[in-house]
Amino acid sequence: MPNSARMSGVLSPVITPFGADLRPDAARLVRQCKWLLSQNCGLAVFGTNSEANSLSTDEKIDLMDALIDGGVDPARMMPGTGACALPDTVRMTAHAAKRGCGGVLMLPPLYYKGVSDSGLYRRFGEVIERVGDARLRVYLYHIPPVAQVPITLDLIERLTKAFPDTVVGIKDSSGDWSNTEAMLKRFPGFTVFAGSESFLLRTMRGGGAGCISATANINPAAIHKLYAEWQSPQADALQAGLDDLRGAMQKFPMIPALKETVAIYSGDAEWRRVRPPLVELNEDQRKALAAELSKRGFKMPGLPALAEA
Amino acid sequence: MPNSARMSGVLSPVITPFGADLRPDAARLVRQCKWLLSQNCGLAVFGTNSEANSLSTDEKIDLMDALIDGGVDPARMMPGTGACALPDTVRMTAHAAKRGCGGVLMLPPLYYKGVSDSGLYRRFGEVIERVGDARLRVYLYHIPPVAQVPITLDLIERLTKAFPDTVVGIKDSSGDWSNTEAMLKRFPGFTVFAGSESFLLRTMRGGGAGCISATANINPAAIHKLYAEWQSPQADALQAGLDDLRGAMQKFPMIPALKETVAIYSGDAEWRRVRPPLVELNEDQRKALAAELSKRGFKMPGLPALAEA
Repeated sequence: MPNSARMSGVLSPVITPFGADLRPDAARLVRQCKWLLSQNCGLAVFGTNSEANSLSTDEKIDLMDALIDGGVDPARMMPGTGACALPDTVRMTAHAAKRGCGGVLMLPPLYYKGVSDSGLYRRFGEVIERVGDARLRVYLYHIPPVAQVPITLDLIERLTKAFPDTVVGIKDSSGDWSNTEAMLKRFPGFTVFAGSESFLLRTMRGGGAGCISATANINPAAIHKLYAEWQSPQADALQAGLDDLRGAMQKFPMIPALKETVAIYSGDAEWRRVRPPLVELNEDQRKALAAELSKRGFKMPGLPALAEA
Repeated sequence: MPNSARMSGVLSPVITPFGADLRPDAARLVRQCKWLLSQNCGLAVFGTNSEANSLSTDEKIDLMDALIDGGVDPARMMPGTGACALPDTVRMTAHAAKRGCGGVLMLPPLYYKGVSDSGLYRRFGEVIERVGDARLRVYLYHIPPVAQVPITLDLIERLTKAFPDTVVGIKDSSGDWSNTEAMLKRFPGFTVFAGSESFLLRTMRGGGAGCISATANINPAAIHKLYAEWQSPQADALQAGLDDLRGAMQKFPMIPALKETVAIYSGDAEWRRVRPPLVELNEDQRKALAAELSKRGFKMPGLPALAEA
């Protein structure tokens, strides 16, 4: 049965908890995802902020199964499935489609730089054809500051023409509003997510679908409020509030800062752990982050606490 | 039993043959590696020019086994084992050490950009400790134009102090002679390979160990001749000859051009195939490459021909 629904709203690239042995902690991840869903936040698991690129394909497939078997609705999940290697991308993508995920967020292959649109077109096409599943919905992941391999407008045009029912959207993490705007104008039926809440209001006004943002890990309800009320008179004020919190977070390395925030508000220090090459915040950074959050009266209502673990 | 030998000389990041289904062709790879060994060329299989980053860990482990079980001497092999994900790097590295490879060539984890030396140090250390094999010899792989994550001199210092019997060398593909020179001066006992034959003579004069170069796939004997005779009066002339051929190859995308060259001189068109996102040379490029090689009287003596396949 084809999957005709498009995903929309606010999604979080869910941070991945690790045990002392640096293995992913599936039980903590399931609890966190259920909390995010309770905040009207969808689950872009295995994104950049999930440290997904530090996880093996087997680890990600096991986590995906643990989430779905643990009661997390796959229709609300958009797992990242793009890897350097063709077989890894095919395995992850096929598994997500088979398990009923609402979509997948697909990085381009990112080792070789300066590759042509023709080569990228052929690569995305190989993945889609090898997966061969009518339920598959691909959201392209354009994040040139990290991947260094862009998804150009011309490549989107070729892919949406060749696979109109499969390549249905994009996350634009270029940080360049003019690029998001160009996508919205050139591809009217295409589902465009802003790569952070910084561009959420402009994206909604331009006909976009929402945002997939790091800070949705900690601030999902407020971001969803702007998504839901973007046409209301207070929309600009809501955007300003989001910008203020994001500005505070951006004073620190984002992934360790997200994990530290969850550790603080859950009382669960296990959340601090990152996989190398990332490093945890140091003592000074932790104090400074706590102060930034505290002076804003920041809260994470309903966050699973250590006692529930 | 510890492995006290250091690798040296000329090594080729061996191009990987693919079948019509884009699967690696182990039999062709075994034949090609045996030919390279017959030309005094070591085997840096699973390097950048091997399209190793388009292969899964399982595919690389299967190929490594096929090579060694097929009679290729593991002591002459320096497989690339560095991947984005920690478990992939550990698996590949452990397998190479267990199978008796002379060394491994290890990329840093390359998805996350702007990571600290502390994070990279911790990541390399995790891999070495998890592998836990006294036979392991790690050659670091510094290739900032592609990986975008550098291996700094300070990181080398930390790693060689912490793991003096394990972290024994580096391939410098920065393309920046001043960086290679700085390594040679600062770390006298460290085994430094130039990232291409362009710097082979300067590297040997500076106390280096040789080179690991794309064009060793097609020109191994001539590159080895300079390695063997770098102190002879004709060394500069030999270097100039190598530079001329490399210059011709660099008029084309390197990996497809190496494969096309092997296809031409073996009469085996199967060699042309690349995995996307790379693309084969087009008809005009193929003709131009053939002309460049032909006008130089280029030959690949002893290359396995199609009839032997």
